[in-house]
Amino acid sequence: MRYELYYWPEIQGRGEFVRLALEEAAADYVDVARTSSKGMSALVRLLDDSKVNTPPFAPPFLRAGKLIIGQTANILFFLGGQHRLAPRTEAGRLWTHQLQLTMADFLVEIHDTHHPIGSGLYYEDQRKEAQRRAADFLQSRAPKFLGYFDDVLTRNASGYLVGARLTYADLSLFQIIDGLRYAFPKAMRRLERKRQRLTTLHARVAGRPRIAAYLASERRIPFNTQGIFRHYKELDE
Amino acid sequence: MRYELYYWPEIQGRGEFVRLALEEAAADYVDVARTSSKGMSALVRLLDDSKVNTPPFAPPFLRAGKLIIGQTANILFFLGGQHRLAPRTEAGRLWTHQLQLTMADFLVEIHDTHHPIGSGLYYEDQRKEAQRRAADFLQSRAPKFLGYFDDVLTRNASGYLVGARLTYADLSLFQIIDGLRYAFPKAMRRLERKRQRLTTLHARVAGRPRIAAYLASERRIPFNTQGIFRHYKELDE
Repeated sequence: MRYELYYWPEIQGRGEFVRLALEEAAADYVDVARTSSKGMSALVRLLDDSKVNTPPFAPPFLRAGKLIIGQTANILFFLGGQHRLAPRTEAGRLWTHQLQLTMADFLVEIHDTHHPIGSGLYYEDQRKEAQRRAADFLQSRAPKFLGYFDDVLTRNASGYLVGARLTYADLSLFQIIDGLRYAFPKAMRRLERKRQRLTTLHARVAGRPRIAAYLASERRIPFNTQGIFRHYKELDE
Repeated sequence: MRYELYYWPEIQGRGEFVRLALEEAAADYVDVARTSSKGMSALVRLLDDSKVNTPPFAPPFLRAGKLIIGQTANILFFLGGQHRLAPRTEAGRLWTHQLQLTMADFLVEIHDTHHPIGSGLYYEDQRKEAQRRAADFLQSRAPKFLGYFDDVLTRNASGYLVGARLTYADLSLFQIIDGLRYAFPKAMRRLERKRQRLTTLHARVAGRPRIAAYLASERRIPFNTQGIFRHYKELDE
């Protein structure tokens, strides 16, 4: 079975967390909206299709046979079970998912550094508020979240977040660190200094053969100022 | 086995979504931090306990035997399986969880109407930004989310969100509608007018014997301006 991933074709965004899992699993998938303009129409059509019983609120969503699965963390929960990217025990699956949901919370706060007033408004129309929010984020929130994940790595001797093997949570943490380095290069140098386990985890994931091949390929969309992680010099203080 | 729920004792907050599920299931549970000041210390101690292998990032978390489960949607996923508050099929469990995660996204946006700059700052220090954000929320975001859930109810003939029976997603949607009515009474009258299925769902959940008994009891903490749903007259336009 070939998976169909539906996500915006121009950004990494939330879809990237799913792409990383599919790539690490060497799963057979097509990134529908990136294949052609027809693919993009198919995405929009599916969002509006009144015959779908389980309509997604927003991309990304994954078609897996008869299933249409929405919500990034939910898709990863499903893929984790299919491709051994999560433990098999109930306790292990819940814990991996819990970490993923905490990253989802973190991601909203990262996004809102440049869009504190409204996701439908331009950055330029909320720049002043963004400066206040980004300052608070870098001073209070980023240290709290990054400290938490560093702490989880400290409690688990393997260097991975969960158990002895890589899970989708490690792939997602890699992506968050990678994105934060792009968005806030100056602040991240400071933030990683005392949290070397994060730096090591990032390098370890980036060095996995399938991930390394993916990152070097054209399938990896470069970071840009349309996505969740955005670099605006004035916010990186 | 008696569940232990750990959550802040003064607010409904995210803990309320778990409380509603436990109440509907008539589960044996103790709301630890509300029992005594010792309970509150136990919550704080558990958050900081370096011997816990699966530390929660924040309350709520649930102790179920040896498991400590964090993240509201993750707790509900677990309880749904234990107490038949979700379908048994994989497709049904994923769909119910997907709806819950969309409500989690909605909840962050509801919270941020009064805290657009920083959750650690006072409302009074971000009142101006809150007015801009709340206006955008009521004009664009609340209609989009409420319209989505109304649409899901339209596609499912039972009057519940998923299948033929009540799930934890219905309990959570009840809570969101209830909270929005408290926070934005004026706007909600307008928003519910064309979305009668939401009004009906709310009444149906409120009328279930165990939920009705719970809402009338002292276990239900009243809404207040410390929680996620807050009523500030100037934001309700």
